[in-house]
Amino acid sequence: MSTLAIRRATRADLHAILAMLRADTIPADRETDPDDPRYAAAFDAIEADPNQLLVVAELEGAVIGTLQLSFLPGLSFRGAWRGQIEAVRIDEHCRGRGYGAAMIDWAVARCRERDCYLVQLTSSNSRTDAHRFYERLGWEQSHKGFKLKLRENE
Amino acid sequence: MSTLAIRRATRADLHAILAMLRADTIPADRETDPDDPRYAAAFDAIEADPNQLLVVAELEGAVIGTLQLSFLPGLSFRGAWRGQIEAVRIDEHCRGRGYGAAMIDWAVARCRERDCYLVQLTSSNSRTDAHRFYERLGWEQSHKGFKLKLRENE
Repeated sequence: MSTLAIRRATRADLHAILAMLRADTIPADRETDPDDPRYAAAFDAIEADPNQLLVVAELEGAVIGTLQLSFLPGLSFRGAWRGQIEAVRIDEHCRGRGYGAAMIDWAVARCRERDCYLVQLTSSNSRTDAHRFYERLGWEQSHKGFKLKLRENE
Repeated sequence: MSTLAIRRATRADLHAILAMLRADTIPADRETDPDDPRYAAAFDAIEADPNQLLVVAELEGAVIGTLQLSFLPGLSFRGAWRGQIEAVRIDEHCRGRGYGAAMIDWAVARCRERDCYLVQLTSSNSRTDAHRFYERLGWEQSHKGFKLKLRENE
């Protein structure tokens, strides 16, 4: 039986993470060449920030999942920190085996360690399977998520 | 005619910001004594983080609006930064005069300065007036927002 290892990503994981982002994006041409230096710069910005944590899940030596966790200070909820999860992806050949739930559990545990009051995430309106997944894990669909695009993606 | 001044908050604005948070929260008992040291600690955590910006809007010397802006690094969208707006409040006596739109415009301009690809926010399902407000400003309601509460608010 395979054991999932969940850990902080290193620079060596970057291509595997980008392959998962590219394989499941809306729209499909959202991402570009994984050697584009903007990805390495983004990795460095995440790595340098103690409130950002890029995560991978590894199965028998292969990266099969990723997410990004952010810790956000705020005044609301009596000055509480909140956790935020973005960019959750699981390799398409590894779905339906509970690895996604294990990754979310792991991220939530890191948020408890940081004494966050809550964890939040948004999921595209079209990802109805993901909505059911989060509701099964006890998350409440309590908010509407709005985006404003500021420039072309080029 | 009164001019709205929008600027980074200082510690001296904290009680005014908390009064607005308390006046319009879901649920109503979400916040506590503004002298609770957790609020000052949260202010300091925001102030110390170059990717966090707590904002107030002032009218004739009185603070009448607030929001928090976060800048988040990420791999998605070709390694783009994104802006995120939280905890938007306007004094109830100052609504309907365009001050909210001016605050959002100001925050979006800061996101453009930081070359963010997009700006995002969530709004409680029950705040249907806010949803119309953001849609009038050109925001797209493209996502569902999920929350998971990790502990009691005490």
